[in-house]
Amino acid sequence: MEDKIAMKLKVTQENLNKALGLVARVASTRATLPILSNVLLKIEDNRLNVSATNLDIAISCELGAQVAAEGSLTVPARLLQDFVSSLPAGVIELEQDEQRLKVTTDSYKSVVNGVSAEDFPVMPAIEGGTSWKIAGPLLKKALQQVLIAASGDESRPVLTGVYFHTVDGVLYMAATDSYRLAEKRLVKMKEKVQLLIPATALHDVLRIINDYDDEITVVHDEQQVQFRAGDVELVARLIEGNYPDYRKLIPASFATTALVPRSELVNITKVSSLFARESAGSIVVSVDEPSESIWIHAVASQLGENNATLKVDAKGSGSITLNSRYLLDGLQAMDVKAVQLGFNGKLEAVMITDVDSDDYLHIIMPLKS
Amino acid sequence: MEDKIAMKLKVTQENLNKALGLVARVASTRATLPILSNVLLKIEDNRLNVSATNLDIAISCELGAQVAAEGSLTVPARLLQDFVSSLPAGVIELEQDEQRLKVTTDSYKSVVNGVSAEDFPVMPAIEGGTSWKIAGPLLKKALQQVLIAASGDESRPVLTGVYFHTVDGVLYMAATDSYRLAEKRLVKMKEKVQLLIPATALHDVLRIINDYDDEITVVHDEQQVQFRAGDVELVARLIEGNYPDYRKLIPASFATTALVPRSELVNITKVSSLFARESAGSIVVSVDEPSESIWIHAVASQLGENNATLKVDAKGSGSITLNSRYLLDGLQAMDVKAVQLGFNGKLEAVMITDVDSDDYLHIIMPLKS
Repeated sequence: MEDKIAMKLKVTQENLNKALGLVARVASTRATLPILSNVLLKIEDNRLNVSATNLDIAISCELGAQVAAEGSLTVPARLLQDFVSSLPAGVIELEQDEQRLKVTTDSYKSVVNGVSAEDFPVMPAIEGGTSWKIAGPLLKKALQQVLIAASGDESRPVLTGVYFHTVDGVLYMAATDSYRLAEKRLVKMKEKVQLLIPATALHDVLRIINDYDDEITVVHDEQQVQFRAGDVELVARLIEGNYPDYRKLIPASFATTALVPRSELVNITKVSSLFARESAGSIVVSVDEPSESIWIHAVASQLGENNATLKVDAKGSGSITLNSRYLLDGLQAMDVKAVQLGFNGKLEAVMITDVDSDDYLHIIMPLKS
Repeated sequence: MEDKIAMKLKVTQENLNKALGLVARVASTRATLPILSNVLLKIEDNRLNVSATNLDIAISCELGAQVAAEGSLTVPARLLQDFVSSLPAGVIELEQDEQRLKVTTDSYKSVVNGVSAEDFPVMPAIEGGTSWKIAGPLLKKALQQVLIAASGDESRPVLTGVYFHTVDGVLYMAATDSYRLAEKRLVKMKEKVQLLIPATALHDVLRIINDYDDEITVVHDEQQVQFRAGDVELVARLIEGNYPDYRKLIPASFATTALVPRSELVNITKVSSLFARESAGSIVVSVDEPSESIWIHAVASQLGENNATLKVDAKGSGSITLNSRYLLDGLQAMDVKAVQLGFNGKLEAVMITDVDSDDYLHIIMPLKS
């Protein structure tokens, strides 16, 4: 049967290279199922569809092709990607010969051994799910700000996800690893949304929407979510379970606040963190209202110690012990000029917000000092 | 005694950062002697001298300073480098307090714990050795072209060095790991030179002379060599032993030669190497005079195969099996437009030379095919 349906087509190196760049990373040579290290090439509606999956996530990309004959085949993702990316710009001819793919250009004649497309696992289609749209740049920025707080610890699967949910007709995104929490307010929305999407899948979403300025379509049912950006599509399995009621952790008021130039606070935190290597990143942040200053103190019993200070606009005085990496992550998630740092007692959460906007908040739990 | 000689000085962040960038990499936290992970700071002739050593190599750098009191101290190299590189540009005050170094700027007050300079190992001075000069850019290019062929295998120490030697009043540099050989002709020289310098030390030389346009002074005796580039100085122990008589390996004539555009040959070699992963990089290079072409054929039994071709100026026909990485290394060591590839029988050396100049040659031993 297979020699009857042997695809044959021409594509440009530029388009195929771009498609493989978006798709091939999901394919893994470490997968238990060898075919998961392959990409699936198939002709659909006179276009070439390139896709890969790791069974949790599937990404596919359609590209224009001059199709002479239909068919489908899977070939090693890494080889094809490295190969196509090394080829000069111009037309590439792809021709299927049973389970082999012939790749021909002016200077190259290659044969890549593949595996029948019949064995390639396909994620089930989303039937009759909820659908909504969101601007690509907004989703991109929100993901960049929130993903940092998701947990990498698989022992609590719920915390490895980002929680998309509506509150009073407004869409929010939140993530927490129980040491820090990030929440972003997105857009007004008629649909009721309550989705827990793996952070790993959203890192791939971030990659595929990177330079996509248009609207992203999001479709989801009980099991899966799909993000569609033009010719690229990502499907991911949702995480099951109830997300913690994180909003009760957001402090309503603060005994001490400081308005701080963000990039300068990043600098003194970075320098302080050098002295905090021995103490697992522990630094003491002090705000002093009388002297209008913020201090960061780090002590390394072996190496030495460091005191760094900045002039700030302070209300109230106090100090708190933080993990310097979490403070840096939070500050770097906000590309604004000035941030407000607010805290209460030594064991209560610190909150960082944009001085000029209230659509993002970042909370860090203190270390015991 | 130590509290009597406590150095105190001011330097600019820019100068100290540059000095640490050149010196600190030699210090290693994995050294058996803990003090080798430190840099030595000492005042000499009213300037600050920053140095580090791993007992095989020592690098030191002098910089201008406003010296209030003399003294010396060693402090952890990595911490000081990371710290100083994170500080804003401007004046830094350094003050020794017994075995501690106080580092103060407008925003920072730090204390770095050090170790007494008395314990710091110093490499012996070179007394009454031979001395000559060479232009920085020439030495840099030569090292870039030759170092690639030196061996990393410590079981034959002689091959881990680069051989500097004079033949009929001309200085040559050569390196070989027994699979390939690179030789560069440098300058006419009155002195008789025969030096075997560790490739690892020369990688550091390459680093310190990187943007140095002036002359480098080279001084050597039986045990050591010193390279001096302005305020920076590197001393390395020489390798003992006789270098092989490599010049007898240089072929005098070729049955087959091809004049090839270098960057295009790099491209088809790179693409071919993707298909040569299974066969440890083995590719077959064929030159065909009648069709005026060069072919590279690579076969991966699992993955597939690749044929790549280029139009060339060919004399004679033949083919030879090479390690694609060695071919790439050789081609990339030559930043010229066109190269000549010459070879004889299947078991004899292939030689690559610049079509326009004869000051560099690169020889690769073939693989058994």
